Amino acid sequence: MWNWRERLYRIIYEADTPLGKLFDVVLLALILLSVVFVMLESVKTIDEKLHQVLYYGEWVITIFFTFEYIARIVTIKKPFRYIFSFYGIIDFLSTIPLYISLIFTGSHFLLTVRAFRLLRIFRILKITRYIGESNKLVKALKDSKAKIFVFLFAVLIIAIIAGTLMYLIEGEESGFKSIPASVYWCIVTLTTVGFGDIAPVTPLGQFIAAIIMIMGYGIIAVPTGIVSAEYTKTQRSVTVNDENYVHVNTSSCRNCGASKHRDDAEYCHKCGTVLHPEEEVF
Amino acid sequence: MWNWRERLYRIIYEADTPLGKLFDVVLLALILLSVVFVMLESVKTIDEKLHQVLYYGEWVITIFFTFEYIARIVTIKKPFRYIFSFYGIIDFLSTIPLYISLIFTGSHFLLTVRAFRLLRIFRILKITRYIGESNKLVKALKDSKAKIFVFLFAVLIIAIIAGTLMYLIEGEESGFKSIPASVYWCIVTLTTVGFGDIAPVTPLGQFIAAIIMIMGYGIIAVPTGIVSAEYTKTQRSVTVNDENYVHVNTSSCRNCGASKHRDDAEYCHKCGTVLHPEEEVF
Amino acid sequence: MWNWRERLYRIIYEADTPLGKLFDVVLLALILLSVVFVMLESVKTIDEKLHQVLYYGEWVITIFFTFEYIARIVTIKKPFRYIFSFYGIIDFLSTIPLYISLIFTGSHFLLTVRAFRLLRIFRILKITRYIGESNKLVKALKDSKAKIFVFLFAVLIIAIIAGTLMYLIEGEESGFKSIPASVYWCIVTLTTVGFGDIAPVTPLGQFIAAIIMIMGYGIIAVPTGIVSAEYTKTQRSVTVNDENYVHVNTSSCRNCGASKHRDDAEYCHKCGTVLHPEEEVF
Amino acid sequence: MWNWRERLYRIIYEADTPLGKLFDVVLLALILLSVVFVMLESVKTIDEKLHQVLYYGEWVITIFFTFEYIARIVTIKKPFRYIFSFYGIIDFLSTIPLYISLIFTGSHFLLTVRAFRLLRIFRILKITRYIGESNKLVKALKDSKAKIFVFLFAVLIIAIIAGTLMYLIEGEESGFKSIPASVYWCIVTLTTVGFGDIAPVTPLGQFIAAIIMIMGYGIIAVPTGIVSAEYTKTQRSVTVNDENYVHVNTSSCRNCGASKHRDDAEYCHKCGTVLHPEEEVF
Repeated sequence: MWNWRERLYRIIYEADTPLGKLFDVVLLALILLSVVFVMLESVKTIDEKLHQVLYYGEWVITIFFTFEYIARIVTIKKPFRYIFSFYGIIDFLSTIPLYISLIFTGSHFLLTVRAFRLLRIFRILKITRYIGESNKLVKALKDSKAKIFVFLFAVLIIAIIAGTLMYLIEGEESGFKSIPASVYWCIVTLTTVGFGDIAPVTPLGQFIAAIIMIMGYGIIAVPTGIVSAEYTKTQRSVTVNDENYVHVNTSSCRNCGASKHRDDAEYCHKCGTVLHPEEEVF
Repeated sequence: MWNWRERLYRIIYEADTPLGKLFDVVLLALILLSVVFVMLESVKTIDEKLHQVLYYGEWVITIFFTFEYIARIVTIKKPFRYIFSFYGIIDFLSTIPLYISLIFTGSHFLLTVRAFRLLRIFRILKITRYIGESNKLVKALKDSKAKIFVFLFAVLIIAIIAGTLMYLIEGEESGFKSIPASVYWCIVTLTTVGFGDIAPVTPLGQFIAAIIMIMGYGIIAVPTGIVSAEYTKTQRSVTVNDENYVHVNTSSCRNCGASKHRDDAEYCHKCGTVLHPEEEVF
Repeated sequence: MWNWRERLYRIIYEADTPLGKLFDVVLLALILLSVVFVMLESVKTIDEKLHQVLYYGEWVITIFFTFEYIARIVTIKKPFRYIFSFYGIIDFLSTIPLYISLIFTGSHFLLTVRAFRLLRIFRILKITRYIGESNKLVKALKDSKAKIFVFLFAVLIIAIIAGTLMYLIEGEESGFKSIPASVYWCIVTLTTVGFGDIAPVTPLGQFIAAIIMIMGYGIIAVPTGIVSAEYTKTQRSVTVNDENYVHVNTSSCRNCGASKHRDDAEYCHKCGTVLHPEEEVF
Repeated sequence: MWNWRERLYRIIYEADTPLGKLFDVVLLALILLSVVFVMLESVKTIDEKLHQVLYYGEWVITIFFTFEYIARIVTIKKPFRYIFSFYGIIDFLSTIPLYISLIFTGSHFLLTVRAFRLLRIFRILKITRYIGESNKLVKALKDSKAKIFVFLFAVLIIAIIAGTLMYLIEGEESGFKSIPASVYWCIVTLTTVGFGDIAPVTPLGQFIAAIIMIMGYGIIAVPTGIVSAEYTKTQRSVTVNDENYVHVNTSSCRNCGASKHRDDAEYCHKCGTVLHPEEEVF
């Protein structure tokens, strides 16, 4: 009894054995397929032809995901750690919408939340380089949190003030129907997206718009400068302290599910459980 | 008599006591509410339903702001310093439009200038980090003033020359109605906003437009490079002199209203007044 | 006789005497006025009301510029150096269009070339800082010439290939009328301008467009990175060799018109003429 | 017999002799001409007038290219190395479409693949600087491969999730016809291209769109920061090791076609063949 749980665990949670690798590849293919299914179902011409295929395909995948989700809970020793972890929540949200859609129609489109599951690709790739890179990115973003907050606040205040101005100048004929709509237009312009669904027509409005654009042009420099500087800094410090980085593997603790263990780790760094007891048994 | 002024002062100007903190939070909520009110009032469908609520709500908030403005003047020893300070002017401009709207209709939309009052949020957050960050940003912008001037000048001259060219080539059918309109289009294009309300239709016009776009693409690199380089420089010098930074608090001088005092300050760094006389009294 | 030429020279070419400064300020105001005049004349509603004012205003300014141009040639010793210098050509092109418009109507809009004369503002500001900044910018651009050439070439080849693809996929109904039009659309998309006058409608076309956009997104990073790195480099080297910079003044050589002399210069660095002979005379 | 092959080889593959240079210039002119021909043929009004000229012009150039392609294969000792090299494939793809168009009409527009042949310009320019620059660019891109992969993955997942959200909120009236179309719109918005062919009209949709735009604004900073940091790093290391760079010439090995030989090279660095045997013969 203990044995099959142990084996299932290694297949589902780790990608070091051939079976574990196969499982992860099949899983990824199914995730991709299910995202494509949901997207295609929303295209009318395709849905008319393939409705049955897409409908049953989604149910088959969902049932597979349901079993996988249950297996993940059953095989791990501390299931709540998994359930409330990032991947645990994503896995739950990826499974539930189709069941809900039996009651509320339309909600099955929420299945695209499965796209998040694609992040599992990084586990298969087993390339810590990618983890390192995304860690660096996340670190750069975290370090510039205060800067980004100040920056977003400034953008918001500019957008509110300039939006009101444009509303008063342009009036409702040119699409500036209300202050919220004008603020929306301001954000569209400041970010240099510029849909053109709303555009100023009066000379004064165009003049103010030109000023807003040039400001947006200047503002675009700020986050780039921030991330660029922060990134250079991170890169430098990482290069300096490169010996502080060790290689981690894809195995995870049987007890609590913690991952990214050092290659030479014997005990889980979260709960102290021995990591590969069966290796000692066999 | 002196005593209530002193107490009121600490509540209104400082955020270190529980009452002061409460006051600031309530104030911010009211500012936010009033900005939302003004924005909603401009949306016709909402205004039709809630006109009374929004109208009286704005008056209630304005009267509160009026009393607050008077209290700020009364409790400070040198009121003119406050009146002509940045926050003093914002506070005045945030209060007056509704009174003016009794005479000139429509002007009450200027109440969105209250959005600037939201900057007070940084005082409550009591995080000098934010002040430090925005100071760094302001410093970076100040240091690159000359560069930005040269840059904006170049953009303007390019826009005028290219705008005239496009006006001569495209003619009035494609929306290039006049040279100012063409210059406006040029700025829209150079900044990569690209509304599309005006767009070239002749092959020659599209060719010139392509050149303008690629130039704009190159020009966008300039301010980013400037801010990026300047920012890196600022960051470096700040890192080096990190011991020159001390923590400041939100209390402000009773005499002149100067703020950002060191935590261990006993005298105002602007006017030399003892900062917390009542603490010595009690 | 020699004396008035000398005096006129100092007024026109230099900005160190009160009269010279006044002359430059009046000149700049006239340049600005004439650019505004030409722009306003192209606006129909304004032209109908103020045609006479604008027409005679332009002639008055042009006649003033003609006299100024002649005076510049007469007072300088080596007039050809001035005539074929950057400012000399701009001055000529700023004067001639109105005379030509007597023969060819419409050509007077070329008067906006006068916008280039606004560059004289930097001489009045007498701030070498601005010259230094623009020199740095020009240097950064010059140093990255090879990079920018490679970059533009890559953009062009991508635009031609991708444009042909889109033409074959989208067909003529969605605005991709010909390969040149598709290449134009590609440049509009790669530079993230996105007018929307032409937009793909077929799913395959939208897929290719998405790829082009993301490539454009990546490509935008290249010139920014180039200028940013180059700029940082320039800044560093300038800081290091700061002692190699000397202050220059606005006086220029009476013989050949060369400017940017050192404050302590006695002889022109271009032709060896004594710079201020009258100072030795008086 | 060997002699004319040798001579032809030097003309076709190298650009150091006058004849070789002439050949390359003529070749480039023909490539440019043929790209222009194909582009013009797609413009209806021009095609109607010049159909014969363009049609025969393309055939003449294609026949020339065919002979050139055969000559390239005949004169080189190891023809397969050339055939499967980058330039070999481009040369083949540049020649074949017109022959195919005898069977399948329309396919001759694929002749624009000839645009890639324009890359030969760098060989004529004989400026290793350009090669150095593009190498640096390619190196910077290669080094940030992992970063760019993580980044593109993040963009894709955001686009899928946000696209589904917008599809559910906006419905089909505003152009969000299906999830793939919404994902397309999301990419258009995240990259700040913003065509405006699809634009949200509901307040909630505009609110989500504003958030997507600001995210896109932040995301644009990431690749710029990456390339910028990577580029600065590359530049630094290149500057340090500048003595490791030697000048290379445009001659290529008669045996295997390898190019970029050192000026003083006597043997091919790929296959060891004597580089200029005839120089020893004569």
